[in-house]
Amino acid sequence: MSKGITSRAENYSQWYNELVVKADLADNSAVRGCMVIKPYGYAIWEKMQAQLDKMFKETGHVNAYFPLFIPKSFFSREANHVEGFAKECAVVTHYRLKNSPDGKGIVVDGDAKLEEELIVRPTSETIIWNTYKDWIHSYRDLPLLINQWANVVRWEMRTRLFLRTAEFLWQEGHTAHATKEEALEETAKMINVYAEFAEKFMAVPVIKGVKTPNERFAGALDTYCIEALMQDGKALQAGTSHFLGQNFAKAFDVKFATREGTLDYVWATSWGVSTRLMGALIMAHSDDNGLVLPPKLAPVHVVIVPIYQKPEQLDLLSEKILPLKRELEAKGWTVKFDDRDTVKPGFKFAEHELKGIPVRIAIGPRDVENGTVEIARRDTLTKEVYPIAEAVDVVTRLMDDIQENIYRKALDFRKANSFQTDSYAEFKEILDRGGFILAHWDGTPETEDRIKDETKATIRCIPFDAPEEAGKCILTGKPSSRRVLFARAY
Amino acid sequence: MSKGITSRAENYSQWYNELVVKADLADNSAVRGCMVIKPYGYAIWEKMQAQLDKMFKETGHVNAYFPLFIPKSFFSREANHVEGFAKECAVVTHYRLKNSPDGKGIVVDGDAKLEEELIVRPTSETIIWNTYKDWIHSYRDLPLLINQWANVVRWEMRTRLFLRTAEFLWQEGHTAHATKEEALEETAKMINVYAEFAEKFMAVPVIKGVKTPNERFAGALDTYCIEALMQDGKALQAGTSHFLGQNFAKAFDVKFATREGTLDYVWATSWGVSTRLMGALIMAHSDDNGLVLPPKLAPVHVVIVPIYQKPEQLDLLSEKILPLKRELEAKGWTVKFDDRDTVKPGFKFAEHELKGIPVRIAIGPRDVENGTVEIARRDTLTKEVYPIAEAVDVVTRLMDDIQENIYRKALDFRKANSFQTDSYAEFKEILDRGGFILAHWDGTPETEDRIKDETKATIRCIPFDAPEEAGKCILTGKPSSRRVLFARAY
Repeated sequence: MSKGITSRAENYSQWYNELVVKADLADNSAVRGCMVIKPYGYAIWEKMQAQLDKMFKETGHVNAYFPLFIPKSFFSREANHVEGFAKECAVVTHYRLKNSPDGKGIVVDGDAKLEEELIVRPTSETIIWNTYKDWIHSYRDLPLLINQWANVVRWEMRTRLFLRTAEFLWQEGHTAHATKEEALEETAKMINVYAEFAEKFMAVPVIKGVKTPNERFAGALDTYCIEALMQDGKALQAGTSHFLGQNFAKAFDVKFATREGTLDYVWATSWGVSTRLMGALIMAHSDDNGLVLPPKLAPVHVVIVPIYQKPEQLDLLSEKILPLKRELEAKGWTVKFDDRDTVKPGFKFAEHELKGIPVRIAIGPRDVENGTVEIARRDTLTKEVYPIAEAVDVVTRLMDDIQENIYRKALDFRKANSFQTDSYAEFKEILDRGGFILAHWDGTPETEDRIKDETKATIRCIPFDAPEEAGKCILTGKPSSRRVLFARAY
Repeated sequence: MSKGITSRAENYSQWYNELVVKADLADNSAVRGCMVIKPYGYAIWEKMQAQLDKMFKETGHVNAYFPLFIPKSFFSREANHVEGFAKECAVVTHYRLKNSPDGKGIVVDGDAKLEEELIVRPTSETIIWNTYKDWIHSYRDLPLLINQWANVVRWEMRTRLFLRTAEFLWQEGHTAHATKEEALEETAKMINVYAEFAEKFMAVPVIKGVKTPNERFAGALDTYCIEALMQDGKALQAGTSHFLGQNFAKAFDVKFATREGTLDYVWATSWGVSTRLMGALIMAHSDDNGLVLPPKLAPVHVVIVPIYQKPEQLDLLSEKILPLKRELEAKGWTVKFDDRDTVKPGFKFAEHELKGIPVRIAIGPRDVENGTVEIARRDTLTKEVYPIAEAVDVVTRLMDDIQENIYRKALDFRKANSFQTDSYAEFKEILDRGGFILAHWDGTPETEDRIKDETKATIRCIPFDAPEEAGKCILTGKPSSRRVLFARAY
């Protein structure tokens, strides 16, 4: 097949948009800003979900489900939250349609107007804390460690598949604790879970840190995040974990009887990752030939392609392929035998490259004679001939190699594109090439805003591991005690 | 703990409502008609999902995700569908809120009115077939076998937890085929998958059949269903599979090039089950002591309760309990060691009965001396003492026994409450006691409506296995060729 994808060098943004559609990951829908996640894309998301869900459960969390709709008044209860969240939302005002009086189609029934409008959840803190009020009475009810897998809607004006859509899928953890210390510990624990998932499963290296007040979640006292660097030198926030203090407990009057017999407000955290991770996964590894998927998240690990001229040769090849397929499957690999007779091997190769299948095995009549197979890996696009008897071991080794290699490649890329500067002129030059910049900042939101206005760069985070270092703010020259991470971002 | 649940005999409906809340399955929310699915209820739903998803994948289906919102005009495209579905819906009319001019809270921003209203999906045929138009061009693109796990909203006026809620969770399969025969085969295949799931996993016997035209899905040419009998003698429709013919393909202009080179409309099916299955599961098996769960869907299989007077005895008991717990877990059972020191064993027993944990193991100091444990089963409420060395085998055997026993009990109940009559007077008497009735019907919607008006009974289905039998309609005396299944229903 002809891939017909714009190259990254030519136009990175177009490359991404075309890749998402041509690799059958997602598509735009008839509803403005809402995407259709196609089966191949959804299969990757399911793998992500399964792994994250396992990690949440291993850290003591359980799943539950809360309503899609939130009464409008709930948003006004937490002052900062309403500023950040109750604006660009889908609003349900009516609950019935009727036949149009002119007989053409249907219209909204004016008599079926809701007394109070309902908001399609952009995030669920308010409805969940309103529920927790009934669930939490005593320290014995704590901690409450709940996660929800759900769809949410934020009415974005400019949307891009996976990266920013009006509706997206996510998980949102909402926990309740008896002490500030425990809530802070939970906030840190979950950002570590996200970082581990990003690095070990997505093969995407991330920097962990804390957001500046400007970039905090609306209603949080602190927001921890993981930040990844994409191939175009832009940052992508891949997950956040919020320490909410007692803000939502106060807004929804959630108090508990302490062990000592006093009444206190409950401490809260919330944390989430979304289908945006799909965007990070695609942009971090893929190349001009298509997707490059880490084996740990690939829906298909191995594709086997028979190479033959005459139809009767397929039977001969299948005799070798089918046992190999079963052996690979017994090792836990998902294998596709691409025996389509409607397209040529070259077309198949291109298609499997486009879809990022980590390993391809090709077998022709000569291989059968020689007892060999040709094994190609997607990440390096290299191929080698092996005795068929070794194929299972080679594939198993390659899966580890590929997972490791694409992580290392992304890490090397990040290293090569991370800079430290004390000059504002150089700062701007670097931004135009792209990359992470560690620079000093005077700690004021005004300076942060001015840098953003002038350069489009934001402070991605104050890295947890940033050492104490006396310096001068890159813009104002005022004193700073540590460098923060700047970048232009998705 | 005191269970404080109304008995079934006293008030079945109240028993159900109280059980759902007290067993921590679900709760009403602040949003009219929307429920909160609590962690214990959600854990059961997750088990259902995992099994169904496996069965869908084994039958060749893949998952995808389509938008939550559907443009209003889409509903008018299929004439019957609009009648059935576009009425009691949540309608999104605006996409922004703003601060209230009086400074108190937020209001809908009148400037942010949508040009075309969006409907929160009550079911997704329209948005999906609008998408399939872009995906299907040739017979090579068929069949398309897609499932979606999603939330849907139908603005019900009278709601009950799990059984009828404004928002509910479900799966909806939407398949596209080149021929009528293949679509009919798929429709049948999926009702069989549902029946197998209901009987083998939920332990709920079901009757498979076809709906009368009156009871068909809006837009379908045929609706197959599975019907279960609840303990109060009312029927519950537990799953449906629809043969949609070419209706949606015509409405959304989805044609494909056939193998012969002609153009034809695509054939369709859709099929779904929802969180309503939770209602069926609860009502089919539970008793006045609480839930009775089939082991195959129980989130916790075994609970171990230490019986002791003095705190130091717990250590001694734990020495026996912890290895037993590990052994049971190694066999694949989920085990909870209830070592709470804040409540008495009797309270724990009652709580575990309420939650339907299939097997309870109790161990006291005398058991340690004797090398025994007491094993109780939830379904029969019987208990027996066994050597601790046999505990793992006993539990493993009991899981099969319990799964089998509650299915048999439900089947016996259905047999005892299924009747055949040719007298309308007796028909009405039976309905007042409750149960399934096989009776003759003249095949007209008018008669069906009159029977419904007079008795509140509906035709649940024409069972697939109903034999040809000449008879006279129970109401009109007109000729009938087979009996159909009547009942009052949820």
